[in-house]
Amino acid sequence: MDAQYREVGVETVPDHESVFKAAEMVVKVKEPIADDLKYLRRDHLLFCYLHLAAEPALTKKLQEIGLTAVAFETVEVNGLLPLLAPMSDIAGRLSVQVATHLLHQPQGGKGILLGGIPAAKRGKVVIIGAGVAGFNAAVVAAGMGAEVTVFDINRDRLVAARALGPNVTGLYPHPSDIADAVRQADILIGAVLVTGEKAPHVVTADMVRSMEQGSVVVDISVDQGGCIETTRPTTYADPTYTWEGIVHFTVTHMPGAVPRTASQALSAAIAPYASRLAAGGWENFAPLKAGINVQGGKVVHPALLK
Amino acid sequence: MDAQYREVGVETVPDHESVFKAAEMVVKVKEPIADDLKYLRRDHLLFCYLHLAAEPALTKKLQEIGLTAVAFETVEVNGLLPLLAPMSDIAGRLSVQVATHLLHQPQGGKGILLGGIPAAKRGKVVIIGAGVAGFNAAVVAAGMGAEVTVFDINRDRLVAARALGPNVTGLYPHPSDIADAVRQADILIGAVLVTGEKAPHVVTADMVRSMEQGSVVVDISVDQGGCIETTRPTTYADPTYTWEGIVHFTVTHMPGAVPRTASQALSAAIAPYASRLAAGGWENFAPLKAGINVQGGKVVHPALLK
Amino acid sequence: MDAQYREVGVETVPDHESVFKAAEMVVKVKEPIADDLKYLRRDHLLFCYLHLAAEPALTKKLQEIGLTAVAFETVEVNGLLPLLAPMSDIAGRLSVQVATHLLHQPQGGKGILLGGIPAAKRGKVVIIGAGVAGFNAAVVAAGMGAEVTVFDINRDRLVAARALGPNVTGLYPHPSDIADAVRQADILIGAVLVTGEKAPHVVTADMVRSMEQGSVVVDISVDQGGCIETTRPTTYADPTYTWEGIVHFTVTHMPGAVPRTASQALSAAIAPYASRLAAGGWENFAPLKAGINVQGGKVVHPALLK
Amino acid sequence: MDAQYREVGVETVPDHESVFKAAEMVVKVKEPIADDLKYLRRDHLLFCYLHLAAEPALTKKLQEIGLTAVAFETVEVNGLLPLLAPMSDIAGRLSVQVATHLLHQPQGGKGILLGGIPAAKRGKVVIIGAGVAGFNAAVVAAGMGAEVTVFDINRDRLVAARALGPNVTGLYPHPSDIADAVRQADILIGAVLVTGEKAPHVVTADMVRSMEQGSVVVDISVDQGGCIETTRPTTYADPTYTWEGIVHFTVTHMPGAVPRTASQALSAAIAPYASRLAAGGWENFAPLKAGINVQGGKVVHPALLK
Amino acid sequence: MDAQYREVGVETVPDHESVFKAAEMVVKVKEPIADDLKYLRRDHLLFCYLHLAAEPALTKKLQEIGLTAVAFETVEVNGLLPLLAPMSDIAGRLSVQVATHLLHQPQGGKGILLGGIPAAKRGKVVIIGAGVAGFNAAVVAAGMGAEVTVFDINRDRLVAARALGPNVTGLYPHPSDIADAVRQADILIGAVLVTGEKAPHVVTADMVRSMEQGSVVVDISVDQGGCIETTRPTTYADPTYTWEGIVHFTVTHMPGAVPRTASQALSAAIAPYASRLAAGGWENFAPLKAGINVQGGKVVHPALLK
Amino acid sequence: MDAQYREVGVETVPDHESVFKAAEMVVKVKEPIADDLKYLRRDHLLFCYLHLAAEPALTKKLQEIGLTAVAFETVEVNGLLPLLAPMSDIAGRLSVQVATHLLHQPQGGKGILLGGIPAAKRGKVVIIGAGVAGFNAAVVAAGMGAEVTVFDINRDRLVAARALGPNVTGLYPHPSDIADAVRQADILIGAVLVTGEKAPHVVTADMVRSMEQGSVVVDISVDQGGCIETTRPTTYADPTYTWEGIVHFTVTHMPGAVPRTASQALSAAIAPYASRLAAGGWENFAPLKAGINVQGGKVVHPALLK
Repeated sequence: MDAQYREVGVETVPDHESVFKAAEMVVKVKEPIADDLKYLRRDHLLFCYLHLAAEPALTKKLQEIGLTAVAFETVEVNGLLPLLAPMSDIAGRLSVQVATHLLHQPQGGKGILLGGIPAAKRGKVVIIGAGVAGFNAAVVAAGMGAEVTVFDINRDRLVAARALGPNVTGLYPHPSDIADAVRQADILIGAVLVTGEKAPHVVTADMVRSMEQGSVVVDISVDQGGCIETTRPTTYADPTYTWEGIVHFTVTHMPGAVPRTASQALSAAIAPYASRLAAGGWENFAPLKAGINVQGGKVVHPALLK
Repeated sequence: MDAQYREVGVETVPDHESVFKAAEMVVKVKEPIADDLKYLRRDHLLFCYLHLAAEPALTKKLQEIGLTAVAFETVEVNGLLPLLAPMSDIAGRLSVQVATHLLHQPQGGKGILLGGIPAAKRGKVVIIGAGVAGFNAAVVAAGMGAEVTVFDINRDRLVAARALGPNVTGLYPHPSDIADAVRQADILIGAVLVTGEKAPHVVTADMVRSMEQGSVVVDISVDQGGCIETTRPTTYADPTYTWEGIVHFTVTHMPGAVPRTASQALSAAIAPYASRLAAGGWENFAPLKAGINVQGGKVVHPALLK
Repeated sequence: MDAQYREVGVETVPDHESVFKAAEMVVKVKEPIADDLKYLRRDHLLFCYLHLAAEPALTKKLQEIGLTAVAFETVEVNGLLPLLAPMSDIAGRLSVQVATHLLHQPQGGKGILLGGIPAAKRGKVVIIGAGVAGFNAAVVAAGMGAEVTVFDINRDRLVAARALGPNVTGLYPHPSDIADAVRQADILIGAVLVTGEKAPHVVTADMVRSMEQGSVVVDISVDQGGCIETTRPTTYADPTYTWEGIVHFTVTHMPGAVPRTASQALSAAIAPYASRLAAGGWENFAPLKAGINVQGGKVVHPALLK
Repeated sequence: MDAQYREVGVETVPDHESVFKAAEMVVKVKEPIADDLKYLRRDHLLFCYLHLAAEPALTKKLQEIGLTAVAFETVEVNGLLPLLAPMSDIAGRLSVQVATHLLHQPQGGKGILLGGIPAAKRGKVVIIGAGVAGFNAAVVAAGMGAEVTVFDINRDRLVAARALGPNVTGLYPHPSDIADAVRQADILIGAVLVTGEKAPHVVTADMVRSMEQGSVVVDISVDQGGCIETTRPTTYADPTYTWEGIVHFTVTHMPGAVPRTASQALSAAIAPYASRLAAGGWENFAPLKAGINVQGGKVVHPALLK
Repeated sequence: MDAQYREVGVETVPDHESVFKAAEMVVKVKEPIADDLKYLRRDHLLFCYLHLAAEPALTKKLQEIGLTAVAFETVEVNGLLPLLAPMSDIAGRLSVQVATHLLHQPQGGKGILLGGIPAAKRGKVVIIGAGVAGFNAAVVAAGMGAEVTVFDINRDRLVAARALGPNVTGLYPHPSDIADAVRQADILIGAVLVTGEKAPHVVTADMVRSMEQGSVVVDISVDQGGCIETTRPTTYADPTYTWEGIVHFTVTHMPGAVPRTASQALSAAIAPYASRLAAGGWENFAPLKAGINVQGGKVVHPALLK
Repeated sequence: MDAQYREVGVETVPDHESVFKAAEMVVKVKEPIADDLKYLRRDHLLFCYLHLAAEPALTKKLQEIGLTAVAFETVEVNGLLPLLAPMSDIAGRLSVQVATHLLHQPQGGKGILLGGIPAAKRGKVVIIGAGVAGFNAAVVAAGMGAEVTVFDINRDRLVAARALGPNVTGLYPHPSDIADAVRQADILIGAVLVTGEKAPHVVTADMVRSMEQGSVVVDISVDQGGCIETTRPTTYADPTYTWEGIVHFTVTHMPGAVPRTASQALSAAIAPYASRLAAGGWENFAPLKAGINVQGGKVVHPALLK
């Protein structure tokens, strides 16, 4: 393994500490853990997912170290978040793959094939939110031949959703229209992601209760608290629960199920930014500037100062 | 005009009689009218749409003349009727084009766009029968982006219908499933064609009554009596009527609306058979043999002997 | 009906006056009529289609009242007009649906099926302008299987048009290329919309005259005077006229034919802006700022000051 | 429930015995069980899945009763088995839905998304056999965006498979080509169904061993013994096992996971045949004739006489 | 190389003679040459392309040897020729690939891109004959985005051609319609294959002359004499010639350009038949029976007896 | 010819000099040659492809004349180069058309059909760079049914590439992933275009060497020095060379092969800018401002000042 790395030009070092000793910039996927923190220095540039809003202890520690930290999740280009996008791609697609499986009777579902077959109906998928995650959910649901309804406030997203195929309809999230659609849905996907905020409960418990027994709910927004009232976070160790006969899949960090796809896509996303950071002089490059959470030990990101 | 014909090698003659005088075989579109009958001879081979079952007087006349007549509508290849197919192609496509227009409010319809738009729902089309006509209706409805449900007994036809796109579902015509589908339909197309028989009333008046006001019914089967109970034949002079708030379009001989397309397609269909007839020795060629209605003045087609 | 509204949380009031009395903001579809004007007050915020350039009397009245009025048609996001877009979606799709029907011989057309059938040619549709309306016209024409040629100055619009399918070609509007295309067209759609200006006559009367008898012209630009020289406005009461054998459909306010689709789409489009207006503090939100036509009784929109 | 049945015209009877007493023809899904056998009479016509070849005791019992039994699985039209087709539709689609889910790491899979995402590779699916089941497996795999390779001896099946999309390739099952494809596959689907015979082991254990750890095998042929050497039957109670790091899903009677879809499709398939049987005079109707397994207590089907 | 063969189980022998000595059945691609003929014996079963009609000397030799020879080109299933089909697949696709290239100005073409680009027209392809070769030509032309017109007498072939996409139109080969289409074509493909007969000259020299300078003609029918009057056979050594400004590509045995694809497809096609022959008792298997050209030294195929 | 021009309103003049004499603005395709330079004046506005960076002599001459020159290649809209785009459209599509042909054995290729056929594999195309040229290469390769892998740093470009079809995969250009893909490619297309800079050697000679004999390389970046190490510029007179068994097509100015398509597209692209220039007052119109290379005889474009 090490040999393979060395073969393609990677320098390997004997232990955790050595990595940090030699480094000027530290790139990780997840936030630093205790073992990292003891080696991080004031002159390190840290680049990883941080999610500091939810981690006051970590924030304090980074301030004490006095380093500069750029968070993947706040790097921004034209209002989009390019280092979150691959995770949304994955969560969206995964949500429908899992839900399709949960519709099978041995998994507790109502026992239907999502795409139908000759002489049997197609299943119905309702997706709340047509951002990157919701759009990708729609891609898979449409590809499987379901009848898909996507709700979003943004006309452009509805135009994009409809372009996926004639089995995708895009509607405005009037509560009564959501209620109608959810009642008839075989699969309900929650994909409302409001940047940096708790997701609103767009789907109420009453709406979920109106679904037919054995229907399936997947709430991708669970990491932001869920956009469906009946959502409570689960893990892959025990991923589902049934609420009033409706199967719920609400695992936090869904992309963890496909680590190989995730690391391919994430490394592609961060590579150009990591290069830019490594090259220096990046402080006025707007996308990375937006990514700075801690600068020389000082918390500077607006969302953390509220 | 005559000059144009002559230019491409057509011999023109001065009058109706001369055509028959010189001819050994007479090819027409419609059945012979009085003016034709007076010139038809025992040694003529007649090839046209005849529909003798409904025309006892004509049948008698042909018997008297003593000629041989091959009817377009009974030429058969592997159970299919190749000289009826172009008319079914046209009637099927036409039915949805007309119904789409009738959905517009100034035509009495409920005022919706069949294919929907971003933030507005797609319309629903239900088609009874997935033979050539019903399949072609589905082609147009699917192409416009509607949600299409096609009913047919035959699995192969349902497979073909589903292959038109993920917005086409194929179901078996259980009466309760038809009733459910019709109740929600914006457009209902009747396309049940049972060869040589009166179409059964697959859709009852009660089902039609359950449709929303301003919905549209088109019954292609009208030429065989209609497969929808509320169908009564109309003409292009006064093509529609409203029954309990539902707009009906039930013109007989629908393809008459697009004569140019019809004559292109029909001439293509009959050309190889006409050549074969002209070449002689066709009596044992199964497709044409099936087409013989009158042979030397004797009615021979099984359907006419019942 | 009232009961249904109340059920979903709408407060109903007994008469027209009461609506205005209780209101701080008034949202309508069309411009205020006499009955509205008598109740509108200086402290009302008015939000609707206004088209004041063509309505000096209304403008004067609004100035007298002294209120602030935001016009749907000038709300602008990145150079696009989101509250006009749904009407363009509809007009574009409607134009081809109507034209397809007018090609049928009983409607005066040349008697062809737009999408052709086996052994018969596909019809040709020429669309002048590939903005929202022209693009939507192309969507329907392509979906029906016609051969579609779209003219636009903008490369991006041509790229988008070609992406609709291999039966859509995008060309630059060189007059000689337009003339060639129009001469061969079965359907000609005018969809040139120059924001806030009279449409130019891109298609001359001579070009229309060169079309085959029974061809169809629909000019969506009729509301801006028409982009085809032979256009004169009609209404749904008497929607078509024939000019030198060419059938013209040039109804003003075309979307009026599909009120249900229109109101679904329009309410989706205005909802987020209405919420923003209701929440207050919107004056520096660029899209709505661009929408202000009258501010405290003062005409402020640049197009109205010219 | 009973009330609902009665409402649509079903006559309900108080107990199992009464059903048989009043019946002339008995239609079931599965073969008769003990409780049925005690009520079956010599004058009953039995129509259901029988699979007598594997059930000598049942065969003997039917002979003793002396009735006539038509088996769903041997009804034949033009060499196709229309009453097996819906089950093959389902098993094929289900196989890929399940396999997609098993690729997720928490299920023991290698942790990839089948259809890939931007900057991550698409997964590879290899399907052995392109009959109804294999074709349906390809439909779902193609719809999810995988790279699909289908093996079949029959050119027509390869043509049909390629027509599913440019991500489907059809190859001849030369053992070396199968070995190459299997080695690179993320998902391997066995779908070799030789009518009335044990499936051959087209994929050897060595081929399976060459797959990457965490890959997934689903063998639809398990009901006929499996076409993959490493297949051993499982049930939905414990559906998977891992062999040399490769996850296997080899549940017998796979369609049992989607009973609602299955019963819709099956009832559609049997309805026309049941009607024909009920109408009498069906003995010379070739499809049903081929379905007769026991006639007046005598075993007559060639496959049972070998 | 030999080692590789042995590794997969092939027995290799030292020389040409040894192959024949040990063999009971001899399978080749092309007809036997002198070196083969000296080793062929009365008890050999020969299976290869033979084309004896054009090879009286070879026929005589086979009669003298007294063996039985089954010709690939006359094996027949339901009126189709499965061992010719792969060659037609290839010739059809190749024809458009080559023609596309010949349209480039350095190759003598008119200098256009077949599929067009934004703001430039799509090229036009006319294909005469929609059998396997013509259909495959249409697949490639449609895939490249050209406007494709296919002529065929057979309605089913036109239906299949139209299903390739909305840029494919199918017409009946009325000479005047062919003339119109050819005159406007950028590429003309001749693909008329009448089994066992010389191809008719469906396209006249005058039609070719009417094409624009720099247009391209490819005649796949060249092996049967060509269906275009201006065709004269060429070879890959000097594949093209220009006639009145029109570039012609009329190489005999076109598939020779892609030997790897050809041998993959051909081996797949012959494998099941070779196995059947090897297993013995095949004489009453209709497809192979139709393939027998010489039986025990006696010419038996009807086409060779005329 | 002149008459034709005059007919559509073009004024023709007797000689080269007269054109310049009467002109205020001179629009050409290519840079001015000696014959132009002698007539160009200080008050002329020149608008054409200039590529001054590579032409110091021409630059000096334009400075001496003292005119203002706007270069097609630096006109810029939102970071895109609209007057280069049509050439990239063409080069991209052309590259795959040529490469497909070079794969045929008579051209030195390995003898495969790019899109495969039933029972034969699809070919593999690797495209480096998914800008306008690379995207268009992918359009044609996908349309022909190849397996396509596109490399690009930019996520949006990968999303667009994947949207072309399920046979297109988009990856990040990690060198090891490029090496893997190139080794398996039948066709390698270089399409890396870094504005105003020499293309980097993204594909090394070793990678090319790893390809199978008879594979094909086309480097569209050849005009910028090539992005493949083994590229050396050729011309249409002798367009290809073979390096270590790999066929290379590396013609500079590739679009020269399709002059008709190129001039249609280019005239469409320049027309709106030429009109704007002709109308005067364009100096503050950002796209054209970016196009100014020489202003009143002074070199002003940043890229020329480095």
